[in-house]
Amino acid sequence: MKQLRVGLIGYGFMGRTHSNAFRTVNNFFDVPFQPVLQTICARNGERARAFADQWGYASAETDWRKVVESPDIDLIDIASPNDTHAEIAIAAAKAGKMVMCEKPLGRNGAESEAIVDAVEKAGVANMVWYNYRRVPAVTLAKQLIDEGRLGRIFHYRAKFLQDWTISSDLPQGGEGLWRLDVKVAGSGVTGDLLAHCIDTAMWLNGGIDEVSAVTETFIKERKHTLTGEVTPVGIDDASLFLARFNNGSLATFEATRYARGHKALYTLEINGENASIMWDLHDLHRLQYFDHKDEGKLRGWKSIHITDREHPYMANWWVPGLQIGYEHTFIHQIADFLTAVGGGTSAAPTFREGLATDDVTDAVLQSAASRSWTKVKTR
Amino acid sequence: MKQLRVGLIGYGFMGRTHSNAFRTVNNFFDVPFQPVLQTICARNGERARAFADQWGYASAETDWRKVVESPDIDLIDIASPNDTHAEIAIAAAKAGKMVMCEKPLGRNGAESEAIVDAVEKAGVANMVWYNYRRVPAVTLAKQLIDEGRLGRIFHYRAKFLQDWTISSDLPQGGEGLWRLDVKVAGSGVTGDLLAHCIDTAMWLNGGIDEVSAVTETFIKERKHTLTGEVTPVGIDDASLFLARFNNGSLATFEATRYARGHKALYTLEINGENASIMWDLHDLHRLQYFDHKDEGKLRGWKSIHITDREHPYMANWWVPGLQIGYEHTFIHQIADFLTAVGGGTSAAPTFREGLATDDVTDAVLQSAASRSWTKVKTR
Amino acid sequence: MKQLRVGLIGYGFMGRTHSNAFRTVNNFFDVPFQPVLQTICARNGERARAFADQWGYASAETDWRKVVESPDIDLIDIASPNDTHAEIAIAAAKAGKMVMCEKPLGRNGAESEAIVDAVEKAGVANMVWYNYRRVPAVTLAKQLIDEGRLGRIFHYRAKFLQDWTISSDLPQGGEGLWRLDVKVAGSGVTGDLLAHCIDTAMWLNGGIDEVSAVTETFIKERKHTLTGEVTPVGIDDASLFLARFNNGSLATFEATRYARGHKALYTLEINGENASIMWDLHDLHRLQYFDHKDEGKLRGWKSIHITDREHPYMANWWVPGLQIGYEHTFIHQIADFLTAVGGGTSAAPTFREGLATDDVTDAVLQSAASRSWTKVKTR
Amino acid sequence: MKQLRVGLIGYGFMGRTHSNAFRTVNNFFDVPFQPVLQTICARNGERARAFADQWGYASAETDWRKVVESPDIDLIDIASPNDTHAEIAIAAAKAGKMVMCEKPLGRNGAESEAIVDAVEKAGVANMVWYNYRRVPAVTLAKQLIDEGRLGRIFHYRAKFLQDWTISSDLPQGGEGLWRLDVKVAGSGVTGDLLAHCIDTAMWLNGGIDEVSAVTETFIKERKHTLTGEVTPVGIDDASLFLARFNNGSLATFEATRYARGHKALYTLEINGENASIMWDLHDLHRLQYFDHKDEGKLRGWKSIHITDREHPYMANWWVPGLQIGYEHTFIHQIADFLTAVGGGTSAAPTFREGLATDDVTDAVLQSAASRSWTKVKTR
Repeated sequence: MKQLRVGLIGYGFMGRTHSNAFRTVNNFFDVPFQPVLQTICARNGERARAFADQWGYASAETDWRKVVESPDIDLIDIASPNDTHAEIAIAAAKAGKMVMCEKPLGRNGAESEAIVDAVEKAGVANMVWYNYRRVPAVTLAKQLIDEGRLGRIFHYRAKFLQDWTISSDLPQGGEGLWRLDVKVAGSGVTGDLLAHCIDTAMWLNGGIDEVSAVTETFIKERKHTLTGEVTPVGIDDASLFLARFNNGSLATFEATRYARGHKALYTLEINGENASIMWDLHDLHRLQYFDHKDEGKLRGWKSIHITDREHPYMANWWVPGLQIGYEHTFIHQIADFLTAVGGGTSAAPTFREGLATDDVTDAVLQSAASRSWTKVKTR
Repeated sequence: MKQLRVGLIGYGFMGRTHSNAFRTVNNFFDVPFQPVLQTICARNGERARAFADQWGYASAETDWRKVVESPDIDLIDIASPNDTHAEIAIAAAKAGKMVMCEKPLGRNGAESEAIVDAVEKAGVANMVWYNYRRVPAVTLAKQLIDEGRLGRIFHYRAKFLQDWTISSDLPQGGEGLWRLDVKVAGSGVTGDLLAHCIDTAMWLNGGIDEVSAVTETFIKERKHTLTGEVTPVGIDDASLFLARFNNGSLATFEATRYARGHKALYTLEINGENASIMWDLHDLHRLQYFDHKDEGKLRGWKSIHITDREHPYMANWWVPGLQIGYEHTFIHQIADFLTAVGGGTSAAPTFREGLATDDVTDAVLQSAASRSWTKVKTR
Repeated sequence: MKQLRVGLIGYGFMGRTHSNAFRTVNNFFDVPFQPVLQTICARNGERARAFADQWGYASAETDWRKVVESPDIDLIDIASPNDTHAEIAIAAAKAGKMVMCEKPLGRNGAESEAIVDAVEKAGVANMVWYNYRRVPAVTLAKQLIDEGRLGRIFHYRAKFLQDWTISSDLPQGGEGLWRLDVKVAGSGVTGDLLAHCIDTAMWLNGGIDEVSAVTETFIKERKHTLTGEVTPVGIDDASLFLARFNNGSLATFEATRYARGHKALYTLEINGENASIMWDLHDLHRLQYFDHKDEGKLRGWKSIHITDREHPYMANWWVPGLQIGYEHTFIHQIADFLTAVGGGTSAAPTFREGLATDDVTDAVLQSAASRSWTKVKTR
Repeated sequence: MKQLRVGLIGYGFMGRTHSNAFRTVNNFFDVPFQPVLQTICARNGERARAFADQWGYASAETDWRKVVESPDIDLIDIASPNDTHAEIAIAAAKAGKMVMCEKPLGRNGAESEAIVDAVEKAGVANMVWYNYRRVPAVTLAKQLIDEGRLGRIFHYRAKFLQDWTISSDLPQGGEGLWRLDVKVAGSGVTGDLLAHCIDTAMWLNGGIDEVSAVTETFIKERKHTLTGEVTPVGIDDASLFLARFNNGSLATFEATRYARGHKALYTLEINGENASIMWDLHDLHRLQYFDHKDEGKLRGWKSIHITDREHPYMANWWVPGLQIGYEHTFIHQIADFLTAVGGGTSAAPTFREGLATDDVTDAVLQSAASRSWTKVKTR
């Protein structure tokens, strides 16, 4: 089997999920490449080496440019904070490497557009880690929609609820907290959580035409870890919007880190003329399905336990009844990527699809600022 | 419409549910009789009069014999403690009255047999208030089984879990507590809770061939309200049994008042070759249904919200989506009884069916005492 | 006990729920009045008489003015279509009757304002039938919020999903279908369903400051039953809005009749700093509660089965574990009304509160028309 | 870090779960050994080599004796069919290797006793793969019980429901089907599924005193893959029993492969004086907990989403809200084993504990055969 040597930039939460996926994919999926954990790169050399030890990377590095330019690397995987995505991705594309990037692609559409231009000009394989498309239940939802089972779509609703930043004692920025620093993250929950909801929504239900949004920062000032000073918080703590899709369906979207009791409750529902679908991340191994064509007295919401061989990806795992978890979505995504690359095609979501999501988050933030309905940029 | 004058014996919890059913049935169901609340009878005259005022009974009485013999009464409804059922029911039958009786029919099969003999000899309409057959979800389960959708039955399981007697401070006997006095109740949870499970089970799955049971009295002594003395507790606090039905299916049954966290959790499940059904009383307006004939990737347990016009009894209530509650089961039962009487037939469960249930509870108690598999009496 | 003679206008779905409540309240609640079903009034005399027979009204009438002016009537209860509310309510107030009215109070704020002026000038007791406040689980939610358990509120979300008008074959207008005729109903789901959500929301979370809304009519033309002609549909099939409450919390609201699989799925959730609450109408006897003050490893959403004596209204019903249903909310509401009237006060929601809800629905419709954030009228 | 060279016997379903655990444990847990995938051994050499390639075993072997005697192996892990456990385990112990064995330990208590004697005489570390103890929710249940939160225990109930053998076309024996061949498996669901339930139950609730059981073989004859002949089926398809624990609590246990709609529905519930616990394998990342000490009106069953850092094992995985799956239980088990070995102790369940479970399954089968209450052997 051909080896595909990976240079990973960033060792945080996502560095772990990606490493696990690269390291495990061949045990479960028959794909034409074997990822090799070649180099981990991060600013803190000591931690980079510890991470290399833990995961079996052949080397650790502190300068990402060296990794990008190394002849020992085939694929650059970007799992570092958002403000580094564009520069690294563009350099990697110019160096002719395949590039994978954590979401959101850029901090805004302009950054993402530059990234897309670079990879498309270079003609290198690329993918954004919108991993929730690869939850088997979500993939099954996509199949059902593509099979036309829902009929005309009337409604879409999605939310992503967390509660981890409610305390005013939490600082902004610093190790593990860059998501609260607007310069690094670009935005708050809009880019962090809504971006996931939007990516899935457009995959399932097509493009979004226009939005009306509101955002809020509940805790206005926080101490910044790096400076030690209490400064205004620049990110949005909550972001809600109404939307109209190109197919005429209406939607509500909401993300927040102030929904007490929810840790990562990403939920989606889609209502069609003939059938409806619900899913949530807290029970990711189930899909709720209602089919109006069922016999009248037996109509109801079906809780499909997504563990059968007939379900997407599940024939590669255990036996019916035994559920998989969160990290499997990354394994599925890299499996699809490797298969696509082996076949000379590219796997979704490409950077161009990542750009489309950023166009929507741009429209959301612009709508919230202008307090008016805002058209999503079309390209 | 013809009037049907009711003499109710007993004003406890069941006296209320029955009174409500008699008083309400004509508002919702098109039946050939109008029940008239003629007389409430109870030992405590003052309370009987208060009850009459609250519910609109024309008169209150303390001597049940007078009610039974009154020419103003067409139907005797027995909602008094278990130890009074046989005497009243037999007298009522001899007086030519229709008779309805709370469950269990007698304190044991021998008592029940005498009651059945009396009503059958007198040829009077009769029914036991095993109200859970008339939960629309349970009635729908019966329909699905009768339509052959489950195929060969392999398993049945039922339990009825409560937790209201865990405290050792609770006395046995006295107002509202006669269920803890073995002389009055006949048994503990076996006759009180398992009897419900058994009635439904035989209705859905046919007769029971043999049982192996165990019972337990967790709190061995309690103060008796009437005597003031601490005496041994004679009832069973918990009763569990294995069973084999005549159709070859296997079952577990369990009832207890020591299952912390459950108030009236009556659950049942039946597994057939092609389909399975689950129901529970804490969400009585839902039926869970699994159909193996569904398309493979879409198989799952369906939660049917039993509020549509196509569901049993529900066309008589509100609109789809709006649930009914516990007391409606009594209204359904009296509606069926009145319809049957109007048509010259009798509605199930008759006293004879109530006797069949008592035969099973007799076998359960006998098996627990003898620690051996025990055949259910066949008649 | 004092009698309170009721004149009911309208015999539809709501005529039934009200009649049942008037007829049953004294069996379960200790209130200072006994409602008497005096007169049912409806345009179709034959049906009015049939309704009188079914429910026991002393008389049937076709001219509501006669009922309003009758000395035999103490209370006018308006359950007729929305376009009749104002005229009848104002006349009743002028005649010095107590007035109860189905929701929404008027077809818009202007109509409602006139009604409020009339009852306040006349000094008569009045109440709008926003019955969902009296679901015991919702009342418990109110108690928990009033006790300060949630702390600062960040988010509110509510939706009311139905699917009964998806078919294009359904006519607009006619018997049972006046809710689809904009002239009669005033609006579509905004006044029919969102009004419920808004009433509860303002009760639980205070006033709404501003909204951004979108509405849609998915099926543009329908045959009108009365004229036989296919004409444009004037009502909104779906109505969604973002809102900011006066307390700074953000909200999403949504109502539709195009959410396949949902019959009457009214759901609400409120997220506070310390605790969160969820409830839905399809399992109305449960309240979901998350308390962040629980011990860390044991935090979770608690499903409270609202059937205990400690729960609002439940001591008046059966025993723990046994659920009530939809119609009980009307019984609770009339019980509270009678108690308030007996004590010389008025029970909520008064007509003035009903007006406040209409002010919000007005803002919603105006925002949808103008595609801009709209302030709710303050009075 | 010290290496621990593993010789795995058997490449079936369990061979995969164990390999994954050995290969992954160091990425997530800080343990004193690094397992090395040294040798995979199976009768079919070609498949053994393919398995070695897939998982990265250094070598493949067809004769388990060579593996047991190899100086390159520190730990023998037995994942081959039940009839091979005793011989291999005893040989491994004699060779001074650590031994891990899939459950059940032996096909019966006699076999297991011989195994226990061997490892205890040799003084080698040993463990049975009763992996469900290491579901974080189940481990949390154990903590809660050990902390005394439940008080006196009244009831235990467990079931393990599957439906994969309902078809009469399924052969007995052959690749992947040895669980249907009584000679190989020892028993049917008793040893395969009930053994899991019993192991957990005794861990949580102590020893079992006596049982009353019934078993059934619903499909009496099946074709045997190896011989091609239709012969009587020797295994039990269903096995149910009542039990009394040493602490006086009562229990029902049930396992079957004929419960349509359930794939691997292992459920357990334990009711104590003060609190109760429920868990099921189909949503393994949740624990249901009811605490009677909660404030009255707020009592309810709490659904604890076991994904927080405070939950057992979960600090080693992702972030709150993100669930793990089935295979993680094996990773937890090997992590605990390696930690114990590093500390010079042994991790539970040891072979001796596996023997205790086999003593119960022996009693179950004996009770079913003799149709009488049967004492569990005490040692």
